[in-house]
Amino acid sequence: MSDIATMVEGLAKESRKAARILAGISGGKKNQALEIMAGLLIDRKKELQKENAIDLAAAEKNGLSGAMIDRLRLSDKVIEGMAEGLRQVMALPDPVGEITDMKPRPNGLQIGRMRTPLGVIGIIYESRPNVTADAAALCIKSGNAVILRGGSEARYSNRAIAAILGEGLAKAELPKAAIQFIDTTDRAAVGALLKCDSHVDVIIPRGGKGLIKRVMEDSTIPVIKHLDGICHTYIDRYADLQMAENLAFNGKMHRTGVCNATETLLVHEAVAKDFLPIIAQRLQAAGCEIRGCEQTQALSGVTVIPASQEDWDTEYLEAIIAVKVVTSLDAAMNHIEKHSSRHTEVIVTENYNRAMRFLREVDSSSVMVNASSRFSDGFEYGLGAEMGISTDKLHVRGPVGLEGLTSLKYIVLGEGQVRG
Amino acid sequence: MSDIATMVEGLAKESRKAARILAGISGGKKNQALEIMAGLLIDRKKELQKENAIDLAAAEKNGLSGAMIDRLRLSDKVIEGMAEGLRQVMALPDPVGEITDMKPRPNGLQIGRMRTPLGVIGIIYESRPNVTADAAALCIKSGNAVILRGGSEARYSNRAIAAILGEGLAKAELPKAAIQFIDTTDRAAVGALLKCDSHVDVIIPRGGKGLIKRVMEDSTIPVIKHLDGICHTYIDRYADLQMAENLAFNGKMHRTGVCNATETLLVHEAVAKDFLPIIAQRLQAAGCEIRGCEQTQALSGVTVIPASQEDWDTEYLEAIIAVKVVTSLDAAMNHIEKHSSRHTEVIVTENYNRAMRFLREVDSSSVMVNASSRFSDGFEYGLGAEMGISTDKLHVRGPVGLEGLTSLKYIVLGEGQVRG
Repeated sequence: MSDIATMVEGLAKESRKAARILAGISGGKKNQALEIMAGLLIDRKKELQKENAIDLAAAEKNGLSGAMIDRLRLSDKVIEGMAEGLRQVMALPDPVGEITDMKPRPNGLQIGRMRTPLGVIGIIYESRPNVTADAAALCIKSGNAVILRGGSEARYSNRAIAAILGEGLAKAELPKAAIQFIDTTDRAAVGALLKCDSHVDVIIPRGGKGLIKRVMEDSTIPVIKHLDGICHTYIDRYADLQMAENLAFNGKMHRTGVCNATETLLVHEAVAKDFLPIIAQRLQAAGCEIRGCEQTQALSGVTVIPASQEDWDTEYLEAIIAVKVVTSLDAAMNHIEKHSSRHTEVIVTENYNRAMRFLREVDSSSVMVNASSRFSDGFEYGLGAEMGISTDKLHVRGPVGLEGLTSLKYIVLGEGQVRG
Repeated sequence: MSDIATMVEGLAKESRKAARILAGISGGKKNQALEIMAGLLIDRKKELQKENAIDLAAAEKNGLSGAMIDRLRLSDKVIEGMAEGLRQVMALPDPVGEITDMKPRPNGLQIGRMRTPLGVIGIIYESRPNVTADAAALCIKSGNAVILRGGSEARYSNRAIAAILGEGLAKAELPKAAIQFIDTTDRAAVGALLKCDSHVDVIIPRGGKGLIKRVMEDSTIPVIKHLDGICHTYIDRYADLQMAENLAFNGKMHRTGVCNATETLLVHEAVAKDFLPIIAQRLQAAGCEIRGCEQTQALSGVTVIPASQEDWDTEYLEAIIAVKVVTSLDAAMNHIEKHSSRHTEVIVTENYNRAMRFLREVDSSSVMVNASSRFSDGFEYGLGAEMGISTDKLHVRGPVGLEGLTSLKYIVLGEGQVRG
């Protein structure tokens, strides 16, 4: 085994030990640790910013864009936000130990399920350094040990945050190894982590498609992942067109760079003539580029770029929208089936039967009636916080909150029953 | 792509289409199909037995053991059992479409979850041909299309069963491709199936360790698997020793060749002197070989083979039991943590606190107090039927019934809410 692989495996073994201890820790004790961590992040702001300055200097030297440098920066506000995030996680109920579905069997056995941590969670991320704190807090609260592997451009910042969180654990007399940080820029460390299937229970990649693809291909550990967010809003023939305008506009333009933004607008042909000019004008006035099918081009009354086949499969993440006129609800659902990334789809309709059919038949992690696709996230769903949004079908689908980081074991309460 | 890979991919695409249709079919319609299938299996008994005879002849020619040939045989009783199995699945409630956890949010959105099929399930099995019918029934009832790949020694039998089930689907006007059978003995077909990640949602291997290992290594599709069943029964110092004797004996000897049989007995030292002679004598009288630690050898009063390190990690699947005296509840739980396959563990105790600690801290798919480990299965748990027992932590743990073959999507009911 290479030195890197040995290092990562050693670290994963420590995580496993820490996870065993953490699984038995009460919610109160875990909250105490989170409280201490939040306090430490604030107290040690200067230290964090000193380390962050090293990353920022390197980013400038390497010619990163202004937007990217901004995302790296641990301003006072960002650090306060991280501390506040930890306190929000504290306020959530402890999922571990919850007992559900206890039912008596004819032989008198009481059988049900108890919620447990998953064990050790590996998180591979490319995003802002505050992910270090957010992800660690969710893992600790759900009783899991976490192994963090952040992007190299935030190495000093991530390491400093992880060290402070570990200190918080130790102060609360919890095992420090419950939060570990892979402190090397060597990419072989990711490969090594993905093969630690005896010590790591699940891998959660957070980043671009390249990362997710690599993780899927190389991991021998189960993966909870988020692929694209090609979300659709379908305006039915029975839609309230005023509502439809608001939902389509909000879905696309409330924030364009996020996975739950509407990327494709489907419009029933019966309302296309009335609806398209209104929404097209509003979108264009707000600076949104429209790429449409032939009918959209003909009916919108504004400049519409002809949509190519590729447009129906594109997650723009910017102020561009694809618009297509469809002949029926079925045609809309077929388009979604073919092009959606199974993240979030919306129908706008006043018709009960059509709303129910859409809810039942559309196979995406979130399916909505008369609501903006932008609501599809853990905070809006009342999960309190989220690790990301899963576009998988197994284990957890949609926003991944504390529950998504747990498992259920069966518990059986007997009085000496034997099988006859 | 090889011819085999092209064939398997083509078949998987057909399954995907069938799955889309099946997902929208009502429970009544699915039951009607199961009823027709059950009837056809009985009506076409002769035809099944004719195909089965080809497998039986090959098995004899290839020198398979009498026990293995027995397992292959589609006797009248086995065929009637398959039909009865289909009717049992019919009687279960339809899991698809169940809506849970609907809660209003402050903005008036109603948010909850709806149960959906997984989609396309690939089942790779080595076992008896009746698995073909059992597995297909569970998949159809849960709204999933299934691709079956059975062992080559049962090829003619499996193909005939699958064809009859497909006929049943067609008679009920459901898509025949919802049950597909990979009709080749070429092992490359398994490899090809494991890479069909665009068309297959989950792989369930049912067979020996070699098969499971291959599937885990080669599959780019999520896997629900069952590894070993190294189950422990721990006799606490506060156990009712009469009950302990019954549970230990039943756990080991009720049926020895099954995954939920007790393989290791842990005995608290405070009761070892009283308990070991009783249980050892009873086990020995029933023909069970005992492999014990030094104290077990000294205290049992019968012939005990010294246990090697390996014994603690062995799934015997026969009338052999490993016995170890432990100094405390913690020592018992540590032994379990180190050696268990995380299938099923039992504590026998009259002490409330110790029972609760065991339930909470032992990390296995089933954890029991004062019950025989043999209860750990889908029928005994009231699931009605099972696809197998998952020793995974993600998605489904323990017996896999209909619910384990489904997923939950979020549904959001709005009245035009936009995000501000």
